[in-house]
Amino acid sequence: MPELRLNVITHDWVIMADERAKRPDQFVTKKVLAPQLPRHDRACPFCTGNEGQTLDESFRLEGHDGWNVRVVPNKYPALSVKGARERGGGGMFRSLSGVGVHEVIIEHPRHDLTTALMDIPHVADIIRAYRQRYAEIRKDPRIEAIIIYKNHGESAGTSLIHPHSQLAATPVVPFQVRARIAEATRYFDEHGDCIFCRVLRDELTAGTRIIAESKHFVAFIPYAALSPFHTWIYPRRHVSSFDGITDDEVVDFAGILRTVLAKLYNGLNDPDYNYSVRSIPTDEKYTDYFHWYLTIIPRVTKTAGFEFGSGMFINTSLPEESAEFLRGVAVG
Amino acid sequence: MPELRLNVITHDWVIMADERAKRPDQFVTKKVLAPQLPRHDRACPFCTGNEGQTLDESFRLEGHDGWNVRVVPNKYPALSVKGARERGGGGMFRSLSGVGVHEVIIEHPRHDLTTALMDIPHVADIIRAYRQRYAEIRKDPRIEAIIIYKNHGESAGTSLIHPHSQLAATPVVPFQVRARIAEATRYFDEHGDCIFCRVLRDELTAGTRIIAESKHFVAFIPYAALSPFHTWIYPRRHVSSFDGITDDEVVDFAGILRTVLAKLYNGLNDPDYNYSVRSIPTDEKYTDYFHWYLTIIPRVTKTAGFEFGSGMFINTSLPEESAEFLRGVAVG
Repeated sequence: MPELRLNVITHDWVIMADERAKRPDQFVTKKVLAPQLPRHDRACPFCTGNEGQTLDESFRLEGHDGWNVRVVPNKYPALSVKGARERGGGGMFRSLSGVGVHEVIIEHPRHDLTTALMDIPHVADIIRAYRQRYAEIRKDPRIEAIIIYKNHGESAGTSLIHPHSQLAATPVVPFQVRARIAEATRYFDEHGDCIFCRVLRDELTAGTRIIAESKHFVAFIPYAALSPFHTWIYPRRHVSSFDGITDDEVVDFAGILRTVLAKLYNGLNDPDYNYSVRSIPTDEKYTDYFHWYLTIIPRVTKTAGFEFGSGMFINTSLPEESAEFLRGVAVG
Repeated sequence: MPELRLNVITHDWVIMADERAKRPDQFVTKKVLAPQLPRHDRACPFCTGNEGQTLDESFRLEGHDGWNVRVVPNKYPALSVKGARERGGGGMFRSLSGVGVHEVIIEHPRHDLTTALMDIPHVADIIRAYRQRYAEIRKDPRIEAIIIYKNHGESAGTSLIHPHSQLAATPVVPFQVRARIAEATRYFDEHGDCIFCRVLRDELTAGTRIIAESKHFVAFIPYAALSPFHTWIYPRRHVSSFDGITDDEVVDFAGILRTVLAKLYNGLNDPDYNYSVRSIPTDEKYTDYFHWYLTIIPRVTKTAGFEFGSGMFINTSLPEESAEFLRGVAVG
């Protein structure tokens, strides 16, 4: 019989479908890996030599031989950096001016790399860029939430090959975030404990869904994972805002992030994926009830009418089996 | 400057992105329409003559020449019709036995049709089958919510060409539904009015986002549509549960549903889409604060890391422009 599992953090019920369940290796993508992507593509706006094609840099980390990581405004921004935060409309039609920040983090000068194939010190530079931008942008009083995310591959929503991620800072707290905070606060009120810390402790005790552990972080497939290989990376230390990450933790986080992405790359043949950093809205920084984390969603299945019509998910893989599979994949 | 719009029903903020905005005709799919799909496919389990390949029918509507619509259990069900509704797990790991119903509505004996191309009396038979199954299945005390949905086309999550839709009856009320009901109840408490009725009145007054109207229904693109051509069909009469639809309304609903789908088919070259019926959980039937409706999501764009990381959406089309475009498309 199938089993429904409750994700106590998101409050989503997930159907673990046994009749449709697949073995982990059945999710290996059929993608033909480009055997030899060029290290440099003259036509790519993110490649070295084409720095003039991007808008004015907001941040840069230098390397031995030119830049390591650059942050630039998105050329087609979803939100405008100029203007005031003003409410409009009325009655049932309420609007807000679309002010905010939309930046691109160019993760590497090389065109042909992806996080899974970079070295850890370089990945740490990407995390440092995230932290610098997060800490800087949160000072803007118009901003209420900052979302750092990555779209890897076409089915994950990008057509640009050059390794990059994005940051969007919005003038509202999304309803979903507000609802989750309300639930986490309720849990804290009832138990005097952060629900994220509690889930992490229980996952470590159970052990069966852990993918990797480092000094400061734990990567695991949640008990009620929404989709196959849906992964969470939690900091062990209770910190509610992403920019609370310490120098020491940055390097450690880079290591575990690269480990998980390399396991996906090697184990599933470079699946498309999205990741995003979940953090407390910017008006707050230190709270007892929220805990920042990173969520990874490999795009190995499609959402359909059932998910749209209910907000529930059907997962065709068993989290314990997927975690065991990933534990066994070499990082290389 | 982009504009943020609040969907007062779902409480989602949607970014209407001006820099990335496209004209409605830029969403026309490049799909090559099969010039001559066979009327009958010997290998298709849903075609006439292959009735023995499906599980035992739970419902059938007869036509002049054999069946018009058949309902059968899904061969690979996400939920099991047998068994008790039992809680399991403990602490942070809470589960429930996956009991419920998962059926397939085979919409037409012909292999090569889609709702947009059927005649209205036939579409009315499909709606009658939905209603009969909804009313029947709600009697099962293990069931808390019934979701009727359709996946049309591969990017919408189906690979079966034969016209069909599905029904899933779950032993829980999804959190998303619960949250929306809580918000609608709050609105009712404050205003003594159904928020859906209010939105419908205001949309009719504004007029700019209406696609089609019939005696009993209105089809419109919501003010804060999540994605291009995201469409709602609302009954004018306040009814909270889908199975409250009257005989008269069934035929009228079939007409407006076919009109909207034919406009999408003709205007956007048969885009893939999902639709689903949103209805009150089955423990309730007549409430003042909830209103059933049908939502259609054409799959003309992809969700990416921003949506996953925030629950917010970026819409690259303007609802008013999309509605105007669809108003101008002939139904044929």
